[in-house]
Amino acid sequence: MASEHPNHPRLRILMGDAVALGPGKADLLDTVAATGSISAAAREMNMSYRRAWKLIDAMNRDFRRPLIAASSGGAGGGGAQLTDAGREALRRYRSIEKKATASVADEIAAFADLLTDDGNRG
Amino acid sequence: MASEHPNHPRLRILMGDAVALGPGKADLLDTVAATGSISAAAREMNMSYRRAWKLIDAMNRDFRRPLIAASSGGAGGGGAQLTDAGREALRRYRSIEKKATASVADEIAAFADLLTDDGNRG
Repeated sequence: MASEHPNHPRLRILMGDAVALGPGKADLLDTVAATGSISAAAREMNMSYRRAWKLIDAMNRDFRRPLIAASSGGAGGGGAQLTDAGREALRRYRSIEKKATASVADEIAAFADLLTDDGNRG
Repeated sequence: MASEHPNHPRLRILMGDAVALGPGKADLLDTVAATGSISAAAREMNMSYRRAWKLIDAMNRDFRRPLIAASSGGAGGGGAQLTDAGREALRRYRSIEKKATASVADEIAAFADLLTDDGNRG
C-alpha cells in the first residue's frame, strides 16, 4: 500500500491514458502470480473471468514481451504464471509507485486535511 | 501534462480508492474555471451534464469546503466558478502530481522501453 494510514488518500499511478499498466492491472498480475490461475485470480478480485482475460490480453499486446503465460487443458485445468517480462514490469511498476509516493508523502498528508472524514475514506 | 513526450507513459495520480480528487476531476475543475460554466465544461470534456454535475457534487461533499460554486438563473443562465478552496485543492493536486512525476522521470522513461509502440500510445 502506498500509505500506511488507511484514512489518507493513496497515490496510484497510471501510465498514460491507455494505461498499459495501472493499479488494477498490477494487482491482477500479483494475484495471478499468487494463485497460478487466471480464473482463481478473477474470483479473488471479484471480477469476471472475461474481464481478467481481457486485461491480460491487453497487457500481453501492449508490452513487447507477454507478461503472463497461460497453459490450457490437462487434468487440473489450465494454469497461468508471470513470465520473466511480467515479473520485471511488475517490479518496476511497484518501484515507481513507491518512489513517487514517498516523494510527496508530506504533501499528501496535508492534502488529506482538506477532506471531510468521508472524503478521507479512500 | 506529466510528460512532455507524447509517446511516453504519463504518471497520473489518484487519491485513494474513493478518489476525492483524481485526474478526471482535476481536469474538470480546470475546465470549469476556464469556461465559467458546468455545461460548457461538460461539452468541452465530452461528458454529459449529469456526469459533470455528479462529479462536482461529490467533490463538494468530500471536501470540507465546496470546490465549485454554481449560480443558477439570470438572463445569461447559470454560471459556475472555483471557490478559494477549489483553487487551493487544484493547485495542491497539480503540485503533488508534478513533484511525484519528476521524482521518477528516469524510471518512467525506462519503463516505456518495455512497451510496444502501440502500448506507448497513452
